Amino acid sequence: MRYDIIIIGAGPAGLSAAIYSARGGLKTAIFEKGMIGGQINVTDEVENYPGFEEPLSGFDLTDKMHKQAQRFGADFIDEEITAMGLEGLCKIVETTENKYRAKSVIICTGAHPRRLNVPGEEQFTGRGVSYCATCDGALYRDKTVAVVGGGDSAIEEGLFLTRFAKKVYVIHRRDSLRAQKIIQDRAYKNPKMEFIWDSVVQEIRGETKVQDLEIYNRKTNQITHIPMDGVFIYVGILPNNELLESRIELDSSGFVLTDEYMHTNVPGIYAAGDIRHTVLRQVVTATSDGAIAAWSAEKWIIENYDSLEV
Amino acid sequence: MRYDIIIIGAGPAGLSAAIYSARGGLKTAIFEKGMIGGQINVTDEVENYPGFEEPLSGFDLTDKMHKQAQRFGADFIDEEITAMGLEGLCKIVETTENKYRAKSVIICTGAHPRRLNVPGEEQFTGRGVSYCATCDGALYRDKTVAVVGGGDSAIEEGLFLTRFAKKVYVIHRRDSLRAQKIIQDRAYKNPKMEFIWDSVVQEIRGETKVQDLEIYNRKTNQITHIPMDGVFIYVGILPNNELLESRIELDSSGFVLTDEYMHTNVPGIYAAGDIRHTVLRQVVTATSDGAIAAWSAEKWIIENYDSLEV
Repeated sequence: MRYDIIIIGAGPAGLSAAIYSARGGLKTAIFEKGMIGGQINVTDEVENYPGFEEPLSGFDLTDKMHKQAQRFGADFIDEEITAMGLEGLCKIVETTENKYRAKSVIICTGAHPRRLNVPGEEQFTGRGVSYCATCDGALYRDKTVAVVGGGDSAIEEGLFLTRFAKKVYVIHRRDSLRAQKIIQDRAYKNPKMEFIWDSVVQEIRGETKVQDLEIYNRKTNQITHIPMDGVFIYVGILPNNELLESRIELDSSGFVLTDEYMHTNVPGIYAAGDIRHTVLRQVVTATSDGAIAAWSAEKWIIENYDSLEV
Repeated sequence: MRYDIIIIGAGPAGLSAAIYSARGGLKTAIFEKGMIGGQINVTDEVENYPGFEEPLSGFDLTDKMHKQAQRFGADFIDEEITAMGLEGLCKIVETTENKYRAKSVIICTGAHPRRLNVPGEEQFTGRGVSYCATCDGALYRDKTVAVVGGGDSAIEEGLFLTRFAKKVYVIHRRDSLRAQKIIQDRAYKNPKMEFIWDSVVQEIRGETKVQDLEIYNRKTNQITHIPMDGVFIYVGILPNNELLESRIELDSSGFVLTDEYMHTNVPGIYAAGDIRHTVLRQVVTATSDGAIAAWSAEKWIIENYDSLEV
């Protein structure tokens, strides 16, 4: 099957790219093997995407974008991609079922939270281990929880958890936070929050769900066990770059480098949203990236093909 | 009066900056002497801002952003700014009525359409002369209209006008269009469109409203008069940069240069939206700019002030 533009990933960046591409009259396919909406899907309340006076769920927001892209005629394809050939004028996307060709490809594969990789983490994910306080926080009313990490996300989500939990520990491997000062100040003032410095979680323990954490202090070498009902892990974000060929230039963390047109170093290949090396990762920055990528890809196709006909 | 962040201009960029800034706990003022919403306000149907399955008016879209910013506590101030002092740590904004101080200023003054500056243009604006087909096109059902310009906007809006008008002339000073090929192809195929090449409008004539155009052919030096009910002018976009001090670095067209954090060359001064030197001007790129500018300004304030207290 042939398309003008193939978009890989249907989070906010991919959906926005699809809206712009399909509305622009280009034959557009968007591939998503998982849930349409991406990471934001699991967020209960989005209140800072401009245009929505009242908060709405991440699912509702991306569902609107999904329908909007469909209205303009974008094809949603839920096959799993096994390989991509992005060199040359004809780009190839192979799935377990079919082979697709396109003139331009926009990579919107997103990112995912970094794991601690300690015993118990995988076993108890969904049963006390979470990467999303906004999603699961309400389950911990009057419970004791921990947040692991020292950046903005860790501390912001820790503050959010104080709405529900009776106690929120912040476990951080260093002796100071990386989070913005305004957020730090709020955290230090909050009586429900307690800081465990210079420490890492060594094991997450329990029978059928999380019951306590084994914590190792890197300065004193002391090991302590703290009873815990839940642990929220915020130790970074990793790019979903497994499918990308080695020729696409990445930064040292594995995010895709682009210019201001969202063009990668490979002609006709664009990137948008969380997969991109960028300064801020929000729904609104992802949708903007997607719009720019689709607009740029359209211009690239016009410049590089005699006709827009497939 | 003192604020953490002052935002100049309440179009999509300014409104988004206000949402992010006020939600981030910063004392935020947003100045707008005209209508809240900016240029997009006069657009009847916005159908490509991601998140809205059905088209909505520019007014409705920015009204939602306005209420969203108010919900987080941003102060809207409708005084006219007379001077700004943007150097130093304390930024000053003077209006006809008051003097305001802020730690950071975000410039979101937008842009406006370039005028032809020919006799009759000003006189007949709103009576046959328009800069917005989407706004006024429906008034020209079964009429004869002209579009002046050869870029994307001119041709796209010309195509839009064929929904209403019986005839749409495209008057362009060169012998080929700058518009994207896909748009050109559509225009050439449309039987209602006729192209007048190498020509400029010399005068817009009429009694109480537009009746005909005096057109000068630059190659043949011939002057013709064509009866016309309306003329839509799309010859470029100009930055609203009158208030900016000479120290803020602009591009050759007068748009503000920023880095990817939306920071200008003046410490603590940010720019977002149409006023910025950028690759694409859409509501979604403006709101993304605004979010990044507010986030960056917050970080800049934390780094440069001991406390966030005003």
